[in-house]
Amino acid sequence: MTESLASQIEVPAGFEFNAITCGIKASGNPDLALALARDGASAAALFTRNLVVAAPVIVGRKHLQASRGRLRAVLVNSGNANCATGRPGLEACRQSCTQLAKALAIPTAEVLPSSTGVIGVPFPLDKVTSGLPALLQSSSSTPEAACRFVRAIMTTDTRPKIACATVVAGSKRATIFGCAKGAGMIHPNMATMLAYLFTDAEGTPLQLKSMLKTVADRTLNRISIDGDTSTNDTTLLMASGKSGLRLSSPPVRKRFADALGRVCASLAEQIVKDGEGVQHLVRLHIEGARNEPEADQVARVIATSPLVKTAWAGADPNWGRILAAVGRSGISIDPGRVSIAFGKQFVCKHGVVAEFDENAVHEYLSRPEVEIRVHLGRGRASVSFLTCDLTAEYVRINADYRT
Amino acid sequence: MTESLASQIEVPAGFEFNAITCGIKASGNPDLALALARDGASAAALFTRNLVVAAPVIVGRKHLQASRGRLRAVLVNSGNANCATGRPGLEACRQSCTQLAKALAIPTAEVLPSSTGVIGVPFPLDKVTSGLPALLQSSSSTPEAACRFVRAIMTTDTRPKIACATVVAGSKRATIFGCAKGAGMIHPNMATMLAYLFTDAEGTPLQLKSMLKTVADRTLNRISIDGDTSTNDTTLLMASGKSGLRLSSPPVRKRFADALGRVCASLAEQIVKDGEGVQHLVRLHIEGARNEPEADQVARVIATSPLVKTAWAGADPNWGRILAAVGRSGISIDPGRVSIAFGKQFVCKHGVVAEFDENAVHEYLSRPEVEIRVHLGRGRASVSFLTCDLTAEYVRINADYRT
Repeated sequence: MTESLASQIEVPAGFEFNAITCGIKASGNPDLALALARDGASAAALFTRNLVVAAPVIVGRKHLQASRGRLRAVLVNSGNANCATGRPGLEACRQSCTQLAKALAIPTAEVLPSSTGVIGVPFPLDKVTSGLPALLQSSSSTPEAACRFVRAIMTTDTRPKIACATVVAGSKRATIFGCAKGAGMIHPNMATMLAYLFTDAEGTPLQLKSMLKTVADRTLNRISIDGDTSTNDTTLLMASGKSGLRLSSPPVRKRFADALGRVCASLAEQIVKDGEGVQHLVRLHIEGARNEPEADQVARVIATSPLVKTAWAGADPNWGRILAAVGRSGISIDPGRVSIAFGKQFVCKHGVVAEFDENAVHEYLSRPEVEIRVHLGRGRASVSFLTCDLTAEYVRINADYRT
Repeated sequence: MTESLASQIEVPAGFEFNAITCGIKASGNPDLALALARDGASAAALFTRNLVVAAPVIVGRKHLQASRGRLRAVLVNSGNANCATGRPGLEACRQSCTQLAKALAIPTAEVLPSSTGVIGVPFPLDKVTSGLPALLQSSSSTPEAACRFVRAIMTTDTRPKIACATVVAGSKRATIFGCAKGAGMIHPNMATMLAYLFTDAEGTPLQLKSMLKTVADRTLNRISIDGDTSTNDTTLLMASGKSGLRLSSPPVRKRFADALGRVCASLAEQIVKDGEGVQHLVRLHIEGARNEPEADQVARVIATSPLVKTAWAGADPNWGRILAAVGRSGISIDPGRVSIAFGKQFVCKHGVVAEFDENAVHEYLSRPEVEIRVHLGRGRASVSFLTCDLTAEYVRINADYRT
């Protein structure tokens, strides 16, 4: 498995990776990961919009500002979110960055910290700092090292999530390597989603930020597993510049943004597919809206309706629940203009039931991936949104009393 | 059971009830119910705020307007929501009212129709109209007849829901008898909640409307089972005036509103307790808000978070999920001022974990009814909100493929 995962990774020039077990996770699985750009990299990041934010989000934002978008190291731990841990948590986060910076002889502001795990548990600084020497010792630029990084950032994820792309311009060739973790608390505007995107293209922090925002808004920000936005979400893009492919010209930037979009779309899909208890991936297409924001709003209400999501779990063609969700979305829709299709089969036309073969639609909805189209009959804007069903397994995973 | 239920009901003067099986429900359970005020009654109603509304909501609104708040009959069917049924559904609803009005020799506008059940299935007008003679024949003012009404409006409810109160002013004594159905699609601004309140007090439609709105906003509109607002919600208050207790003086009106508030609060609690798959009733108190609307908004976000609700199902003192929900509520809270208590035990003080005995709190949360306080540290406004856990049983009930 590690071998086959590694074979899919091309590590962009200028990056090294590593991960170890430092003892945060009770399972003994790897829980401390490092990404290094020894010669530095331009960087841009998007963080959670939750007002309750974890210590690493606070520190990360400051570091990126202080370093003016230059980073040399990313230090990620899983198993502890370092959130709602107060001043001691903030201090521990800073200390972990300082210790790593000292060992690397770089400014502390060039370290970006990330955490994912349980909220409200004191941060085990000792475990992290005692792990640093081993973490630094065997870091490497091999795909295997990148695999170690990817696996160590997982929490309830059952599969590692990676995506790669290349961009060619003239004689230059740049690589993008992206990886992510997801599983629960997944909702637009980041969730407990950590996504790291590494490239050897060359761009300014401002160029990276603008591309990252545009791309994420259509990919990583258009997914929902359970409607809960996490306190730790971070998406980071780092560009080492080592390939010599420069993002200064608009056509090259366009090509690079497309490639980045493919990487993020793939990661978004992998995150939803591996959502807690997910049995059905649902591609929701909201069409005929006046504009994108209203299509987006309708998509989010449908994607977070427990009644709609449980019907999907049962492959139940109960389109009335979707129509009812559209009706409470806050958009002044005319129900008599709304149509709904499961795959190619219309089940509701202009607000009223369409003739359809119940068994055939049930069979279609039983597939692991389904497409659902909702046409609002208000205009020409549309949005695609990735979501999933709500299963008894999701409840079991999240109702399990922590022991 | 019916006997003990009947013993709790005092039927207000001027009302008769009945119910029969007309064949809409596959189970053969009673599905057509009638409430009669032969000499007429003042009436006021609140309907769903969903834009997708069922035919009876459209017709009911019109009738109340046309009759200027006077009603003589309420005709309720369960098993079919008559929603997303287009013009034929609207026509069928009107026909059922016309047929009943003809049999009673009253204006059609004095009939209020209600439906609850599956969305998008053609309305079985034939079954309803052939049931009318039997429905009218044995209507009566006994508690047993009221029981028949209460049971026939149930869908996935496992228990009938009733509450009574009396108001005394001088030598006059008025009775309030309230009943409701709930179970799924329960969320503020009505859910598939039908609630009927009958009284022999005497008041104008305007007086009733104003009291009903105030009372419902603090009771029936402050509950959530699953965040889904239904297309059929209706709360109706009818006053026959037969007791001679007049609501014209403000002190009497105040006393009556208090009694109505107790009836509605009791029905609200019964609805949440009997929610689909509910194992824990949660009394959520949001305190220290700047004003009621912001306290209400925070309550709704917490009450609809799948991660919070599944933690409750597991009696898990995972307060971090509550804090994260507060953080994404849209209110600009300062996390460092937020405190959370389970019962009397603080688990989070000023945004950081408080010292508590995990086992004791787990035991407390295992009770069928729990109180959770969230203090925002922003002001003096507070709101109480009734909600429940999200269990695997809820998913099973709603994922069951309709056959």
